[in-house]
Amino acid sequence: MLSHPSHPGNIGSVARAMKTMGLSQLVLVRPKRFPDPQAEALSSNARDVLDAARVVDTLEEALASTVMAVATISHGYELTPEVMTARSAARQVIDAAGQADVALVFGTEANGLSVEEVGRCTLAAHIPSNPEYTSLNLAAAVQIFCYELRLAALEDPLPVLDAGEPATLDDIEQLHRHLEQAMVTTGFFDPANPKRLLPRLRRLVARARLEKEEVRILRGLLRTMARTDPTKP
Amino acid sequence: MLSHPSHPGNIGSVARAMKTMGLSQLVLVRPKRFPDPQAEALSSNARDVLDAARVVDTLEEALASTVMAVATISHGYELTPEVMTARSAARQVIDAAGQADVALVFGTEANGLSVEEVGRCTLAAHIPSNPEYTSLNLAAAVQIFCYELRLAALEDPLPVLDAGEPATLDDIEQLHRHLEQAMVTTGFFDPANPKRLLPRLRRLVARARLEKEEVRILRGLLRTMARTDPTKP
Repeated sequence: MLSHPSHPGNIGSVARAMKTMGLSQLVLVRPKRFPDPQAEALSSNARDVLDAARVVDTLEEALASTVMAVATISHGYELTPEVMTARSAARQVIDAAGQADVALVFGTEANGLSVEEVGRCTLAAHIPSNPEYTSLNLAAAVQIFCYELRLAALEDPLPVLDAGEPATLDDIEQLHRHLEQAMVTTGFFDPANPKRLLPRLRRLVARARLEKEEVRILRGLLRTMARTDPTKP
Repeated sequence: MLSHPSHPGNIGSVARAMKTMGLSQLVLVRPKRFPDPQAEALSSNARDVLDAARVVDTLEEALASTVMAVATISHGYELTPEVMTARSAARQVIDAAGQADVALVFGTEANGLSVEEVGRCTLAAHIPSNPEYTSLNLAAAVQIFCYELRLAALEDPLPVLDAGEPATLDDIEQLHRHLEQAMVTTGFFDPANPKRLLPRLRRLVARARLEKEEVRILRGLLRTMARTDPTKP
């Protein structure tokens, strides 16, 4: 999943990198230019990946049906979800992939992902590059992440058996909306003075890896909570 | 170490890939065009790696002072040295790097390394790519190998303590020449009808990871052996 890629050549190189590692599902969020002959030229024989690419308007739309999304980051963010290495993230993604759709999310060539985009993901991962020169290009970063996914998949074909049905990121977004609304209604949260409350809650929810049933329970709780003002018995 | 690279742009991308993973020593064996503005353009800010690159005429010269060389391969060869994954090879390289120079050797964009080049290396390694589409470009392959080296180095800083001084690949080549001469002299080997004898011996010697002292012993043995014809008592 590439968010707002600027250079069509990079989209082609990414398609090639994915295909060498056996991946085929490319999603583009508002690419600057696509389709484009330069993307085709650089995709080499991975043209099929480009042809099958899905183009969407927002990251939220792209993530709606996934159960896990990994934000790929090259620098620190305050209050991101849990941060781990590409290798550890790959293992988690492969475990989750046995159940439903998962996504790796890459930001723009110039600036990476926005804080808001990272906050929509389940966890964040980075490649431990040279701290004095972290200038991995987009296709190189995709190459390494897809390589780690492939190795994790080859190493660990065991499905997770004891888990309930995981919540989709759409379920999670609905929970966040519901939560915010409930917090405003109850006066717990003042949108005019937000501080860091929402990102903190996003981090907490992401780390929890909620199941569908748990989201249902939490939203039931919110419905109850927002109707009664807890400060006035 | 790049053997006979055709495209200067790839040399630049390789320099960038190396630097992101903290590597700096690039050796070029008879590059088609170097230095070249295209290499500089694609090196991004890894120009220092290009400037420090060593250009040599033969792979033998490039490898002479190293104690371990990994041939990177994307397809099978008959009678290569031991073949392993990039990840396993990276661990071995990092262990050996505590002692002396080590090398990763990459072949041409079109055909990879020749059988003879692979035979000069200590071991061979491959990236487990999609068997239906193995078209990793040169810089992408270098990126993955250097990434594995970096991770192996970060993970395992323990030096090997119980090993003797390892033989350099130059020692090994001298041993091979000495061996061949001795085998011809004694009539064991007929250069007009070589069969697979030499590559088999190369594989054996590579797997043995000889120490300097062991090479000395073997060559002493050869000197003795070649003087007396063992078939005539």
